[in-house]
Amino acid sequence: MSLSLLKHSVKLYRLFSVISLLIHKRLFIRKQMTDPIQNISHIFDLVTRCAKYGVEKAVVCPGSRCAPLLIGFGQHPAIETISVTDERSAGYVGLGFAQQSDKPVVLVCTSGTAAQNFIPAVTEAFYQQVPLIVITADRPSEWIDQWDGQTIHQNDLFEPHIKGSYVYSKDQQDVSEEAFSFALSDAKGPVHLNVPIDEPFYPNSLNDIKFSVDTKRDHKTVIDESISDDILDEFSSILRTSEKVMIIGGQLKPDDDLIQLLNQVKVTVVGDVISNLHGVDGVIKSADMVFNTNDESFSPDFLITIGRSVISKKMKLFLRKNQPKVHWHIGNGMVGDPYQSITKIIKTSPVHFFKRWLEQDIHQNNSTGYRTKLSNIQKKVDTQLSTVLDHAKFNYFTALETLIKTLPENSVLHLGNSMPVRIVNYIGMNDPTIDIWCNRGTSGIDGVVSTAVGHAIAEPNRKHTLIVGDLSFFYDRNGLWLNHEFPTNLQIVVLNDFSGGIFNMILGPSNQGELLDLFTVPHKRTAKLTAKEFGLAYHLITSLEEIKGWFSGIMEIFTDSKINKDVYKKITTIGGYL
Amino acid sequence: MSLSLLKHSVKLYRLFSVISLLIHKRLFIRKQMTDPIQNISHIFDLVTRCAKYGVEKAVVCPGSRCAPLLIGFGQHPAIETISVTDERSAGYVGLGFAQQSDKPVVLVCTSGTAAQNFIPAVTEAFYQQVPLIVITADRPSEWIDQWDGQTIHQNDLFEPHIKGSYVYSKDQQDVSEEAFSFALSDAKGPVHLNVPIDEPFYPNSLNDIKFSVDTKRDHKTVIDESISDDILDEFSSILRTSEKVMIIGGQLKPDDDLIQLLNQVKVTVVGDVISNLHGVDGVIKSADMVFNTNDESFSPDFLITIGRSVISKKMKLFLRKNQPKVHWHIGNGMVGDPYQSITKIIKTSPVHFFKRWLEQDIHQNNSTGYRTKLSNIQKKVDTQLSTVLDHAKFNYFTALETLIKTLPENSVLHLGNSMPVRIVNYIGMNDPTIDIWCNRGTSGIDGVVSTAVGHAIAEPNRKHTLIVGDLSFFYDRNGLWLNHEFPTNLQIVVLNDFSGGIFNMILGPSNQGELLDLFTVPHKRTAKLTAKEFGLAYHLITSLEEIKGWFSGIMEIFTDSKINKDVYKKITTIGGYL
Repeated sequence: MSLSLLKHSVKLYRLFSVISLLIHKRLFIRKQMTDPIQNISHIFDLVTRCAKYGVEKAVVCPGSRCAPLLIGFGQHPAIETISVTDERSAGYVGLGFAQQSDKPVVLVCTSGTAAQNFIPAVTEAFYQQVPLIVITADRPSEWIDQWDGQTIHQNDLFEPHIKGSYVYSKDQQDVSEEAFSFALSDAKGPVHLNVPIDEPFYPNSLNDIKFSVDTKRDHKTVIDESISDDILDEFSSILRTSEKVMIIGGQLKPDDDLIQLLNQVKVTVVGDVISNLHGVDGVIKSADMVFNTNDESFSPDFLITIGRSVISKKMKLFLRKNQPKVHWHIGNGMVGDPYQSITKIIKTSPVHFFKRWLEQDIHQNNSTGYRTKLSNIQKKVDTQLSTVLDHAKFNYFTALETLIKTLPENSVLHLGNSMPVRIVNYIGMNDPTIDIWCNRGTSGIDGVVSTAVGHAIAEPNRKHTLIVGDLSFFYDRNGLWLNHEFPTNLQIVVLNDFSGGIFNMILGPSNQGELLDLFTVPHKRTAKLTAKEFGLAYHLITSLEEIKGWFSGIMEIFTDSKINKDVYKKITTIGGYL
Repeated sequence: MSLSLLKHSVKLYRLFSVISLLIHKRLFIRKQMTDPIQNISHIFDLVTRCAKYGVEKAVVCPGSRCAPLLIGFGQHPAIETISVTDERSAGYVGLGFAQQSDKPVVLVCTSGTAAQNFIPAVTEAFYQQVPLIVITADRPSEWIDQWDGQTIHQNDLFEPHIKGSYVYSKDQQDVSEEAFSFALSDAKGPVHLNVPIDEPFYPNSLNDIKFSVDTKRDHKTVIDESISDDILDEFSSILRTSEKVMIIGGQLKPDDDLIQLLNQVKVTVVGDVISNLHGVDGVIKSADMVFNTNDESFSPDFLITIGRSVISKKMKLFLRKNQPKVHWHIGNGMVGDPYQSITKIIKTSPVHFFKRWLEQDIHQNNSTGYRTKLSNIQKKVDTQLSTVLDHAKFNYFTALETLIKTLPENSVLHLGNSMPVRIVNYIGMNDPTIDIWCNRGTSGIDGVVSTAVGHAIAEPNRKHTLIVGDLSFFYDRNGLWLNHEFPTNLQIVVLNDFSGGIFNMILGPSNQGELLDLFTVPHKRTAKLTAKEFGLAYHLITSLEEIKGWFSGIMEIFTDSKINKDVYKKITTIGGYL
């Protein structure tokens, strides 16, 4: 009942607000400035500041309230604008840009629910530490809750999944400096600038627009990565006394320096497919199968984690149950503790940490036995997996095993959530020149297509491949709807089993009889008409022989969900206990 | 800089949280109950409670964490479930259900960004006072920010655009009673129940599920609508001394009682097309043209408003400038003040207020002259509008003028935001048997198709017509993607001018040269392939003669944006100053 009371107080407060509005209403009848350019010049200053902080791309969504922003970004010589109509997709296209270019990217939209459609992508960026500068046009605040069109509460709209929330106006321009510093410092992440704009907001002529002359990019972030001698001594001591040392890489950006360093540190390295550690010699890549065991001797004495989330649920459950004696996490920014076992957090980059490790000549350790043991299990798993796949009819796993072999060297692979990332994680990636991306910050299916499109536009010199399930593909089809030439360097592989087949895979729903339809969403649609609609080439694949190589457009692979389920069941029995 | 400090404190707090987690981690290793049904029985109790409070329909989105909810709603004898895969569309389908049936509707989704995709529809429901019971499955709270999949901060996710936010769990079941009371009391609105669910959550057999025997719907909301004698005396006094009395209807649900009462109150009634007051004799339906004037004598002495937002921008601007002496707003719940002129708020329903007005024999007033004057202007406007349309080549306006005449009696008309609702507002509706709906709570284009689909499923005995622009249609195309037979009682009319033509209409962007593309989103797509994909009939219309009558499927009307623009310009010159 206390909440109910609170709500009534809120209503009273609102009534009071209306009354104060009435009293002060004359204050709110705004003077319309005769020269629109005076009214919106601070918007062009904001655009200039974006360029100074390294923004090269802005994803803009059409609208009226955001007109000065569209015009400003559209006119600025150093910033390319790409227009995407569906804000939900636009947000993810921006995420892809920022990830691929490793630079801050601006998102712009109009007021109202348009801005709310950015929320899923901004949340993904928050958990993936990607610098998005989210600029939402707003109506003047006195019109909120006054039944004005496209007017909602936009301040703090992205909280708590945002590094910082600011209101930018003519009188509050400094906030933009703070917003940028914050977005780009320490662990990067999205920031939000809500920008109330009053009419008139169309300049009389584009010639009226002036950007500050100084567009030199003078931004530099200095991050203190130092590690104290005490910490290094402690590390050295633990390392020497531990017989089982293991490094687990969660999701990481592709990083050759990191791989070179890990190749010199002679301990077990575990890396899911999204860790981008497939270039590390002898990496344990099949954690879900290797840790499919109750043997507690598999658990490390000293666990070192880097990166963010892991996919392998069986490894997670194993480590939660069989906890390491000591667990250090190395990284900047937010620290998650998926095994609930962290004992120390070292706030520095993994590359810096491993450099210091190697410099200190403390890389001698006693965990060779453990390393050999896990390495042997990985080899057994490889053999067992091959046996299962060699004897299976055409299915998800064999299709992707073959497809992955056809991927061009130095290309980029994007994995959809739900089944694609799991399947590829079971199969493993062997080519160290291929980068792997996946929206594992929140593991949503809502922006998979758009994110890959963003990457492909941002890096036109590499070939990109997206592997996506049928539901994810249709869900985010608006990512194909660009007011920009469609990237010809993108291959979209749709895994179509005419349902959300993952729910066939897990034990529960398959016991639920007729209700199964609520989980599996059976349908008869294919991607063919979508390909036609967007002018993309289309290949239909129903056997391994038809998978010939990378091509620009949509490749749709039909599989039988019953066979997929059988193969999946066999794969999940492979494991370390054998 | 204070914000920056705050953020650092937040980070310190998070670090502290991690440390406390470490200390208490053993507490968090949850006991897995062996019998899943014990773990989730409270979920089935929640389903029972929904039925008791009058829920007959639940829109459910596939997922794993929400499995007990899917199973519960799927199994309950009194609740029909409809599965929609894209949560953004699902939210709006639920909004349509609730509006059409005037009953609370449940939305269910899984954890993570899925839940965030409900936000636009919930915000629309908040501003339209529609009772949605939003149930989001969540992971146990200790896994938030621990890099677990599909785990975000879900408590308070819909704030501040929600009537109440609750966490429902085995230990906190009472909150559901409070949530329902709150959703259905006074001004209705959406409420949110976040439901953390721990594994195991698949029952061993559907036979294990027990719903409470008592599913009798015993819910009754008593609303005190009394108006004090003092208020009635004051009202009577103002009415007698006012020479210009005007009632403006904002957006209102169709309500025959209200129309009958307004027909007895002998004062000017102004009603946009979304007010559903087109059955009122002599209603001023063309407010945008009638108040296209600087003549302050058009302003009322006594303004009475009912309903929510109005469309007519010119009337809004006119009244903000030429304010009434007295302005009473009659209604429950949130009060917006679009003219910034309210002097008194009467918290009762318009129907009750007008009944009291008529009972009191105080309906004699001195405003007949004013009424006649505005009525004459409306007639002039009608003539001028006919002249413009009769002389124009095929365009938006003539197409919809003809189409509206073909709408079946007693059918339901849904208007898309942006141009469709404006065009139909200019043309006006004459058939009092037709109900009109439009998402004017937030005026978003993001859920227009889905909302109409929801209405059509909820009221299968009436024919429905949606008029929607090309951008809105493609934006929300996932509203057609139902795990349910597509409603054959729905006609979708797509107005395709191959761009967001509204931006061609307004003065500003058309001066912006090459940047116009950022506003108008030119494209070459049609709805034909979409119709094929979803198995819907398709008609292409390029002349008035081809508009023959209502039909089930998609009717796409191609118009020339240049002609539309010319006609629009002429229409905007029609007005009260002539």
